[in-house]
Amino acid sequence: MENRKVVIDSLPKSQLKISNYQMIEGDVPEPKPGELLCRTLVVSIDAGSRAGLQGSASYAGAPTSGIVMNGAGIARVEKTRVDGISEGAIVSCSTGWQDYSIQGADGVYEVDQDVDPAHYLGVLGNSGLTAYFGLLNITDPQKNETVLVSAAAGAVGHIVGQIASIRGAKAVGVAGVDTKCNRLVEELSFKGAVNYKDPNFRQSLKEATPNGVDIYFDNTGGMVLGSALFRMNDGGRISCCGVVSQYDTKNPEPGPKGIPGLLVNKRLRMEGFLVFDYVDQYESARSQLKEWLLGGKLIAWQDEFEGLEKAPEAFVDLLSGGNVGKRIVRVST
Amino acid sequence: MENRKVVIDSLPKSQLKISNYQMIEGDVPEPKPGELLCRTLVVSIDAGSRAGLQGSASYAGAPTSGIVMNGAGIARVEKTRVDGISEGAIVSCSTGWQDYSIQGADGVYEVDQDVDPAHYLGVLGNSGLTAYFGLLNITDPQKNETVLVSAAAGAVGHIVGQIASIRGAKAVGVAGVDTKCNRLVEELSFKGAVNYKDPNFRQSLKEATPNGVDIYFDNTGGMVLGSALFRMNDGGRISCCGVVSQYDTKNPEPGPKGIPGLLVNKRLRMEGFLVFDYVDQYESARSQLKEWLLGGKLIAWQDEFEGLEKAPEAFVDLLSGGNVGKRIVRVST
Repeated sequence: MENRKVVIDSLPKSQLKISNYQMIEGDVPEPKPGELLCRTLVVSIDAGSRAGLQGSASYAGAPTSGIVMNGAGIARVEKTRVDGISEGAIVSCSTGWQDYSIQGADGVYEVDQDVDPAHYLGVLGNSGLTAYFGLLNITDPQKNETVLVSAAAGAVGHIVGQIASIRGAKAVGVAGVDTKCNRLVEELSFKGAVNYKDPNFRQSLKEATPNGVDIYFDNTGGMVLGSALFRMNDGGRISCCGVVSQYDTKNPEPGPKGIPGLLVNKRLRMEGFLVFDYVDQYESARSQLKEWLLGGKLIAWQDEFEGLEKAPEAFVDLLSGGNVGKRIVRVST
Repeated sequence: MENRKVVIDSLPKSQLKISNYQMIEGDVPEPKPGELLCRTLVVSIDAGSRAGLQGSASYAGAPTSGIVMNGAGIARVEKTRVDGISEGAIVSCSTGWQDYSIQGADGVYEVDQDVDPAHYLGVLGNSGLTAYFGLLNITDPQKNETVLVSAAAGAVGHIVGQIASIRGAKAVGVAGVDTKCNRLVEELSFKGAVNYKDPNFRQSLKEATPNGVDIYFDNTGGMVLGSALFRMNDGGRISCCGVVSQYDTKNPEPGPKGIPGLLVNKRLRMEGFLVFDYVDQYESARSQLKEWLLGGKLIAWQDEFEGLEKAPEAFVDLLSGGNVGKRIVRVST
């Protein structure tokens, strides 16, 4: 029995390429007392991981050439030397991009088996929790307010819009492909969606938000943030969740011209957050998200690749905006 | 008896010049029932007025060529046709840059005469109130936190730093002249001050804020905001008060590169405000500011020019950073 591992062959100099990775094989490790041997079922592909590949991180285990690509996953416990965790348990943990991993008891979270456990990488995992806290705790949407969401067809964005709708607000999405925009409106509860690559984007955005924008959930930064600022109503709130437009480039754009001038004139609040700060509220949020999911109020889009060897391709494609919903790679069943 | 008036001769094409104004004379007007004739004692010179000279405003009375330059002032009531306001009362109102003005009862605020009434243009007027609400309501400084203030020797900035000190926080100023920096530390309660024109500004800022920056009170935007972002501690708050770096130019700088990336990574909150939103709290704030002023806890710097004809020079010089504290022009006694 071999352990296949996708390792970083070289850190990217500019845009990430599939050739920055290579697949190697090794022995399946043995768990020591207090450890678990976990068989990876699904790995999560996250745009945020791109930031770790800049080569500037210096903590132990930081991504560098020769090590297994980091990432969250869902795994089945194959061998247990931990009291209270049985063989066959399904756990969420940092599997990395490999077939087998050794986990300590503190690094795993046992998940329910009454839903596809892959949801614990998406709507019931960091993406869903990020959408939940970033929208509700940072901006507190009210009935009939207009909530604009960028990267709206992404793992976080499509959940944000639906939570806004559940709260009685009007969700409007921004995405970079017309088919994504159409799906947001046709399949989910978005009231409108605008393609930022459209040359008439600013005009289309205006038409899609006739009452202005009260809340902007920013997954992208850059030009879309700049355009959103001009549509904000007085007293508007901006939840800063990520800067996907800036991850995979050597030359990040400057910030929008409207900062800080428009913040002053319109009394806007812009606030960044990291989901990890809300860890003590994860349980209640997960339980609410699961209730919405099982009740059909929340549709969780999963965007799947099959096979560990596809992980680099799945990641490179994600960074160029290829995903619709939460991108995962199924590794094993 | 003549009424001298400084009128806008032409709107500035790029940087404002003294020649954009001219002095004309006219008759002293007569108040109708419900009106006051007011003799201007002092006028306020405000950087924010520069924004109104862009020629884009379209409301009635918006600055344009041929009209009296707008501005707040302090005046003595010479003739009254308003019940409850006596001749000799001292009022704060929109005098404009002229010797005499007609005011309605709603447009005047009667001020105390136990302090120099010019303070009602500074520490007890919009500058002081802006400092008060922008610091206390937006950022809520705590004991031992580091509060960085840009345009720190300005009308608002020098008050912000002192209120921070009163709250037990450590105030550090940013200004563009060494003598201003020295005066902040020697004459006021600032713990440090840094010259942003110093080629080693970033290093000096770092040394002046050894524990990072918890609160940044931004009067300038631009490069100083960008540098401050890099010194912010996790969970820091930025109060966006003004963008003086951008008023007197045709080509406003783009926003800082760290937005929104640093907002996310450091969980920063940036919030703009306008003092007028706090009008229902003006009385209690003024009473607190006056108590601090009379008790010697708060020093109010006034930067005076003598004579109405000096108003354009006082304004142009203010925009190039010539003032220390609240700039006013004494028109009459």
